[in-house]
Amino acid sequence: MSEATNMKEVTNKTIIVLVGTTHPGNIGAAARAMKTMSQDKLYLVNPKIFPAEEATARASGADDILTDAKIFSSLKEAIADCDLVIGTSARTRNIPWPLVSPRKCADIISDNKYSSVAIIFGRENSGLSNDELVLCNLALKIPANAVYSSLNLAAAVQIICYEIYLSGIDHDSLESLASGAPLADQKTMALFYQHLEEVMISIGFHNTENPRLLMHRMRRLFNRAQLEENECNILRGILSKIQSKIKFD
Amino acid sequence: MSEATNMKEVTNKTIIVLVGTTHPGNIGAAARAMKTMSQDKLYLVNPKIFPAEEATARASGADDILTDAKIFSSLKEAIADCDLVIGTSARTRNIPWPLVSPRKCADIISDNKYSSVAIIFGRENSGLSNDELVLCNLALKIPANAVYSSLNLAAAVQIICYEIYLSGIDHDSLESLASGAPLADQKTMALFYQHLEEVMISIGFHNTENPRLLMHRMRRLFNRAQLEENECNILRGILSKIQSKIKFD
Repeated sequence: MSEATNMKEVTNKTIIVLVGTTHPGNIGAAARAMKTMSQDKLYLVNPKIFPAEEATARASGADDILTDAKIFSSLKEAIADCDLVIGTSARTRNIPWPLVSPRKCADIISDNKYSSVAIIFGRENSGLSNDELVLCNLALKIPANAVYSSLNLAAAVQIICYEIYLSGIDHDSLESLASGAPLADQKTMALFYQHLEEVMISIGFHNTENPRLLMHRMRRLFNRAQLEENECNILRGILSKIQSKIKFD
Repeated sequence: MSEATNMKEVTNKTIIVLVGTTHPGNIGAAARAMKTMSQDKLYLVNPKIFPAEEATARASGADDILTDAKIFSSLKEAIADCDLVIGTSARTRNIPWPLVSPRKCADIISDNKYSSVAIIFGRENSGLSNDELVLCNLALKIPANAVYSSLNLAAAVQIICYEIYLSGIDHDSLESLASGAPLADQKTMALFYQHLEEVMISIGFHNTENPRLLMHRMRRLFNRAQLEENECNILRGILSKIQSKIKFD
C-alpha cells in the first residue's frame, strides 16, 4: 500500500467528536487542528454556541470542516455507527478502562480491524460524564505535566490528530494483526445492553438500591472485550433463550 | 537515570523562543501548551503586544510562564547562550538547512551533547526572515496536510513540546491495562466456564452437533476481556439466578 493511500484510510475512518463544548472558539481551533492533519469528520454533541463567528474566525481557513460538521443531541446517537469508541480524559483516577497513549491510539486506528473510530473530547471544564465514559471502549490520556495537565481542547485535538497523521505515513505501522471478523457497532451494542438489562431484571438480578451499577459494570466488561458481531448475536441468542425459560414466581 | 530526572534534564535545557508574535492570545496559549509539557523557559523577541490581558487569559493558569518570560529586541540576543538553535518552518522550499521532524528534534535534544537548545517560532503570517533562519543550526517542520499546513502557533508549540516531553519519559509506562483490580485466576475461570456450560445446557442453548464450539467461543470472548475477580463473581451470581428461575418443560 502506498503511503498516501494508507494515510487516507487512517484519517478517513476517524471521527472527532466534541461533547458539550462551551467556547465556540475552541470548536473553530479544533477544526483547524484537524485540517492541518488531514482529518475532516467533525461531530458536535450539544455545543453551547454553534454556529458562531468566533468558531469561524478561529478555524482560519478550515471553515469547510465547520460547515460539514454534524450536530447531535446525544453522544450515543453520534457514535451509533462506530466500531471503536475512544474517550479522552485528563484524569485517570476513576477510569477503570484500558488506558492508551495518543501514539498507541494511532497504532490501533491504523489497524485494519476497525472501519469507523470515534475519538471523544469532553467539556472544557468537566470532561466526559460517567454515563458518556461507559460508552467508550478505550480511554486515551495525553502524557502531561502531573501538576498542570490542562491542555486546551484544540491542543489536545492537535496532538491526537498529529499522531494519527504520522501513523498513516509511517511504513512500519502497516502491519496488521486483525482477525478480520466484523465488530459489533454501537447501535448493536446498545440493543445488546438493553436486552441484557431486561433479562437481569426478569431474573431478579439487580441491586435495587443502585440498579445502574450492574449495567455499568457489564458495559465496562463487554466494551473492553470489543465484541464481534457474531459474538453479540450469540449472546443475544442466549438472552432470548433465558427469557423463554424463565418461570414466573 | 530515573524517568523524572531525565525528563527534567530534557525540558530544562529547552527554550521556546517566539519571534515577532502578532496576537498576544497566541503567546498565552503557547505558555499554556509549554506548561502542560513541563517546559517553563519562554523568550519573546519583539512581541507586538505584551504583556496583555488576552495573553494572560489564554494562558489559563500558566501565567507564571508569562511572568518569567524574557523579552529581547533581537533573535541574536535571545539565543546568545544556546549551543543548538532549531528554527521551525511551515515552508520547506527555501530552506537549505538540515530538516528534522519534531520526533527527531526531541531525540536530538535528549542527547547529552547539548546543554541549551532554542526552538524558534516565527511570526503568525510570515514565519522567520532569512536573516533569522541563518542563525539556526537545524530547521524543524511538523508533518502536515500538504494543502493546508497552517498550524496555529500555540498548536505547533504544543506538538513540539509534547515530543520533547515524551522523549524524557519511558514509553512503556504510558500504557496501562487497568484499574489494578485483581484478575480472576485460571482456577476461578475454569469454575466459571463449567458453571456457564451447565446453564447453557439447562436453557437448551447449545449446538447438539457440535457442543464444544459454543464454549470455545465463550472462552475466547471472556479470556479476551480478562475478567476481574469481582466481575467473575457477578457473572457467577447471574448464572445461579438463571438456574433458580428456569422452568423445566
